[in-house]
Parts: sequence; C-alpha cells; structure tokens
Amino acid sequence: MNIIDEVKFDDKGLITAITQDVKSDRVLMLAFMNRETLQETLETGKMVYWSRSRQQRWLKGETSGHFQIVKEVFIDCDGDALLFKVEQKGGACHKGYLSCFYRKLVENRWEKVLKKIED
Amino acid sequence: MNIIDEVKFDDKGLITAITQDVKSDRVLMLAFMNRETLQETLETGKMVYWSRSRQQRWLKGETSGHFQIVKEVFIDCDGDALLFKVEQKGGACHKGYLSCFYRKLVENRWEKVLKKIED
Repeated sequence: MNIIDEVKFDDKGLITAITQDVKSDRVLMLAFMNRETLQETLETGKMVYWSRSRQQRWLKGETSGHFQIVKEVFIDCDGDALLFKVEQKGGACHKGYLSCFYRKLVENRWEKVLKKIED
Repeated sequence: MNIIDEVKFDDKGLITAITQDVKSDRVLMLAFMNRETLQETLETGKMVYWSRSRQQRWLKGETSGHFQIVKEVFIDCDGDALLFKVEQKGGACHKGYLSCFYRKLVENRWEKVLKKIED
C-alpha cells in the first residue's frame, strides 16, 4: 500500500503540513501540499509545498537558498495533517526570521521575539 | 487595537491552531478556532477549538479531563496560523496518545512510535 493513500487530502486536494526544526524543535511554518508535491518531498527529501496564493508548486529555498531537508515525517490520527522535522537552511520565514511564528502574545499585543537572521 | 483583529480568519471564519507541549516542545495536534473560541481561549487560558466535523465549540478536555492550559501564544507572518504552547493534561489525542502525531514514516510505512498514556 502506498503511504500516500493513507493521507486524507481535503476537498481542494490539499493537506496541511507543519514544519519543525529537527534540532531546536521550534515550529517553523505551516503550509500546504497536494499529492504531487508531497510525493516530490518524499522522493527528494526537500520540502516542496503547494502555494495556495500562487496556485503553483513551491520548492522551499528555490529562490532564497533556504531549503528544508526532511529528517522525519509524522502523520496525525485523522490522517489529515503532516508534521515534518527538517534541517532548515537559513530562515524559514520570507520576512527574514528563522520561524514564521516570530511574534508572541505579550501583554495584549503581538511582540517580535525573534531577531532576523544574518545570511 | 484588539489583538484578534490581526488574526486572519479564512472564508469559513476559521484559523488553524498548532498546539505544542511547552515542556517537551512536542507538537501535539492541529485543529481550528473561530473568533469566539479564540476569544474564549485567550480569556480562560484553556484551549477551546471549533470542531469542523461537529460544527460546534469544543473545549478540549471537557469530557476527557485532558485540558490544555495555555502558556504561550504565537502568530505567524501572514496572520493566518496560531501556535499555542500548552501544559497538556493527559494525552492530546483521543486515541490515547500524548500527541496526535504518534505515527512516523519508517521504511515506507506509518509506524506507531508513541505508547498510549496510562491515565
């Protein structure tokens, strides 16, 4: 049985992917994959998403060099979410931070708690 | 400005929430909130989701006792995903595991890598 057959894609053909740094366990980002980009991710060992805004394949790092190398893959109980532990080259966030979750709720406001990465 | 105004709910009025164990940094589950359950979560300090399958408010732990106590809250760069670090009482997964991501890809199959929690 193909492992992808156990993955439940939604009505748009997508599954949610959480990406986590394998060393620090920091959650880096949340994005989506379709069947083809999931297949490519598993075959190549590099994270390839489906961009909902651009409606196209999105090899993370293709323009920035900030590739994500797959180290471990988990699936949740319902089969409708995936968790990837990766080695993150540079930062995951297009705004220059290691993680897209660089803002934390502090005293009723969203405060930046990460510094930008120097490339 | 209300911090919830910076949260971008989707066309169904939902935002994705990743829940992570504050001590181990293990990712526990992925679920959804609407404006009301996010507000309640922030006010009460207990995770309250919106169940898409049941189409109703879902106070995590209400029947199981497996409450999730909010310790830290992060928002991503696009404002369309939230990350909650929580103190998890018991297990997060309704199947009896600490995390819903209890299956890992091992040699081309999904293998259980967590044991069930004894209550």
